[in-house]
Amino acid sequence: MILPVKLRPIIFVNGLVLSKLALFMYIPAAVAFFTKTPGVVNFIQAIVITHLFSFLLLRIGKMTQSRMKAREMFLLTSSVWVICCAFGALPIMLLGHTSYVDAYFETMSGLTTTGSTVLSGLDKLPPALLLWRSLLQWLGGIGFIVLAVAILPFLNVGGMRLFQTESSDWSEKSAPRTKYVAANILAVYSTLSILCAIGYRLSGMSWFDAINHAMTTLSTGGYSTSDQSMAHFSKIAHWNGILFMFLGGLPFLLFVQALRQKKLSQLTHDAQVRGFLLIILIIGAIMSTWLWQHSALHFTDALRISLFNILSIITTTGYGLTDFSQWGHFTTTLFIFLMLIGACSGSTAGGLKIFRLQISGTLFHKQIRQLLYPRGIFPQRYNDRPVSDEIIRSVVAFTVAYFLTIIVLSAALSFLGSGPITAISGAITAVANVGPGIGSVIGPSSNFASLSDMAKWFLSLGMLMGRLEILTVAVLFFPAYWRDI
Amino acid sequence: MILPVKLRPIIFVNGLVLSKLALFMYIPAAVAFFTKTPGVVNFIQAIVITHLFSFLLLRIGKMTQSRMKAREMFLLTSSVWVICCAFGALPIMLLGHTSYVDAYFETMSGLTTTGSTVLSGLDKLPPALLLWRSLLQWLGGIGFIVLAVAILPFLNVGGMRLFQTESSDWSEKSAPRTKYVAANILAVYSTLSILCAIGYRLSGMSWFDAINHAMTTLSTGGYSTSDQSMAHFSKIAHWNGILFMFLGGLPFLLFVQALRQKKLSQLTHDAQVRGFLLIILIIGAIMSTWLWQHSALHFTDALRISLFNILSIITTTGYGLTDFSQWGHFTTTLFIFLMLIGACSGSTAGGLKIFRLQISGTLFHKQIRQLLYPRGIFPQRYNDRPVSDEIIRSVVAFTVAYFLTIIVLSAALSFLGSGPITAISGAITAVANVGPGIGSVIGPSSNFASLSDMAKWFLSLGMLMGRLEILTVAVLFFPAYWRDI
Ligand SMILES: [K+]
Ligand SMILES: [K+]
Repeated sequence: MILPVKLRPIIFVNGLVLSKLALFMYIPAAVAFFTKTPGVVNFIQAIVITHLFSFLLLRIGKMTQSRMKAREMFLLTSSVWVICCAFGALPIMLLGHTSYVDAYFETMSGLTTTGSTVLSGLDKLPPALLLWRSLLQWLGGIGFIVLAVAILPFLNVGGMRLFQTESSDWSEKSAPRTKYVAANILAVYSTLSILCAIGYRLSGMSWFDAINHAMTTLSTGGYSTSDQSMAHFSKIAHWNGILFMFLGGLPFLLFVQALRQKKLSQLTHDAQVRGFLLIILIIGAIMSTWLWQHSALHFTDALRISLFNILSIITTTGYGLTDFSQWGHFTTTLFIFLMLIGACSGSTAGGLKIFRLQISGTLFHKQIRQLLYPRGIFPQRYNDRPVSDEIIRSVVAFTVAYFLTIIVLSAALSFLGSGPITAISGAITAVANVGPGIGSVIGPSSNFASLSDMAKWFLSLGMLMGRLEILTVAVLFFPAYWRDI
Repeated sequence: MILPVKLRPIIFVNGLVLSKLALFMYIPAAVAFFTKTPGVVNFIQAIVITHLFSFLLLRIGKMTQSRMKAREMFLLTSSVWVICCAFGALPIMLLGHTSYVDAYFETMSGLTTTGSTVLSGLDKLPPALLLWRSLLQWLGGIGFIVLAVAILPFLNVGGMRLFQTESSDWSEKSAPRTKYVAANILAVYSTLSILCAIGYRLSGMSWFDAINHAMTTLSTGGYSTSDQSMAHFSKIAHWNGILFMFLGGLPFLLFVQALRQKKLSQLTHDAQVRGFLLIILIIGAIMSTWLWQHSALHFTDALRISLFNILSIITTTGYGLTDFSQWGHFTTTLFIFLMLIGACSGSTAGGLKIFRLQISGTLFHKQIRQLLYPRGIFPQRYNDRPVSDEIIRSVVAFTVAYFLTIIVLSAALSFLGSGPITAISGAITAVANVGPGIGSVIGPSSNFASLSDMAKWFLSLGMLMGRLEILTVAVLFFPAYWRDI
């Protein structure tokens, strides 16, 4: 039987990426070594195993000169994420003394920038381990942006063709340009991370906390170095977090272009960015006013707490600050919906993404006009550009798949014994890559450790599917994928 | 200013329908009179007021010879439902000693075949009042079927054009044919109701209980004459309920055609009916086996209880039998999703409807194949017929509107002070026209009386929107509706 996908180039790229992952393990190893904290040996063990396996893959695999087919990209993308988690988990298992399942869950949660955790007593964990978790999120964040700019539009997963640019052409000719854009994005992402770290340092954090939180802010990952999450730090740190979570929720490619051309209007005229800003401003105004009226807080504090929570939720960062379920039922319900939405496509945020919500809104509005004027012709436009029926179908299929995944996952979790709140919020938080769930089991004041191993595997799959825009992974489950054409 | 809709014909039809509603009030009045139970005076008061108002409307309005425009049908449909509730509420307020809000809620819940109630101590209520509630559901059921067969396909609300037949042509020429089909549907609906009543009588119910439950079974309404709902009656009654709830969930027009042509295959070859059967069989098999294993029940009892609950939920009837939340978390989560789906379009059931789920599934499957074969052409087919892009867009717009309505309604309910479970399940149960909610406030063992007046108004609007397939009502909220072309 001849598979319709060539496995050897895929194995080769997996080996290549794995060797890069091993290089990043040297950083926490070095930190452990120089600060004389635990973890040097554990990290060296993980590095050796990872290097060996990556060497093996590079030998089995074969570099190919011809470009990959779309069909091969699905398997490539999914397998890279899965295999990086398989080896990224090693230091966590060895140094954190967890089971392999727990370590895998934690790594998947890191690389998908979800930020759900099975670890507790964070404040007392070895610095090398904390740094590794933050690094995983930072790498996952930049990995996803590059994926969203360079690969997903080309595959037309979930209507991403809407964002097709020269850089996602993926032909021989445009390869140098794609590399150039990717390098630019990396430069901006790194610069923002450094600025964010400086901001946190000035707010009173130690350099270690500042660097860790900068990595998990820009990637909208949400891992913290403290069990209290952001509540552990100063008010200025919160404002710094608000700013950089906001930046992390913007479409990066557009951001890079606006910076290069020094035209901020590129950003402010974008429909998605405007929608993002509008949601934050409206909900921020309502919530901070409400909080100010219903508490003894000063207005600036009410504003800070409201904005921090809103941005933490809508950018799917998932930092904890206050237990907002105590603000009353309205806030809880509102936040569940904000989670589902997520920020802009092309950012590090998860969720359904604002542009899909806007496309659905356009569709709804068109339908209303069609009901009123049955013979009218209403072309669909978005962001001043016409939207093809193909993109609409693709957005809709994604939305169906997104909710279907959440439904199946929550059914699976409840089958494994979770209550409705845990099952549904667990499924949403995983698939939308948010992090904390709701309720006493997996809520902000608790963690995912108490779930069964099987539940953790399911949640890991949910996080992966959410991160890779569902269909990239789902397509592999169809027999047609593996059949010859 | 000239309105784009002619109001006088609409007012006239409203008056006409209201005069028919008044006629139906004579039935409970007569029952009260002959059984010497309370209510004669109250019903006569309501009848006089309704007759007077209907007379007024008939005078203000004006019959028109030309057929109505699509645009006018939206206002006509919505206003008929609203005004019938306004006057149908009178006997409930007068005889049930409730506030007008409560009576309005109860009537809307009846006419939309939702079956949420604010009344308790049903077993001791005057028979005339119980009969009126059941009658409202029975009338609402047949009203909706006729709407779904004759009007909605013509308006193309929510992809209903898929079910366009000669009978929904609505032109001068086809008017007699539409009347003929409507008469046929009414005949089948009435015959089934009578058979159902006989079945219930044979199962041991009194004639009064049998007739009431027959009316609320066929209409998938779910009002009962007992606080214990169906748990009050015998096992044979449950089997009778299973059979007739199933029939109530079938597409009526198809059912009528199959009966007339004596070809059952018309029914069994329909994609929607097959999907409906498949869901019931699969979930029924799993649940009854599970219940049999995990309880001391005999297998036939486990089967009966499982099927009854499944049919009660999926046909959105909402009869209570057992508190299934005690069967574990999996069942609760499963039942929430079953509620959202609903049974076949063209039946009396609420919810999203199975055909929309199937169209979404087709779309999803097409998308997967499109990802694998980017240059392939995959025509969309449903039920052996091609599906136009227009219908797909319409189905999608409906689905977006359906979930948006649930989201906005649950946000409104939580703003008014309900907890997440009450708010979300309350919104779902109203919009999907199911009846009971989940949890301690509005769950099967409680009722809606404790909610605030404002919450009841919102829920009434939600039930109306759910019943009239959302867009029929939503379109009225758009200024464009009221502007001239
Ligand atoms: K996150
Ligand atoms: K119902």
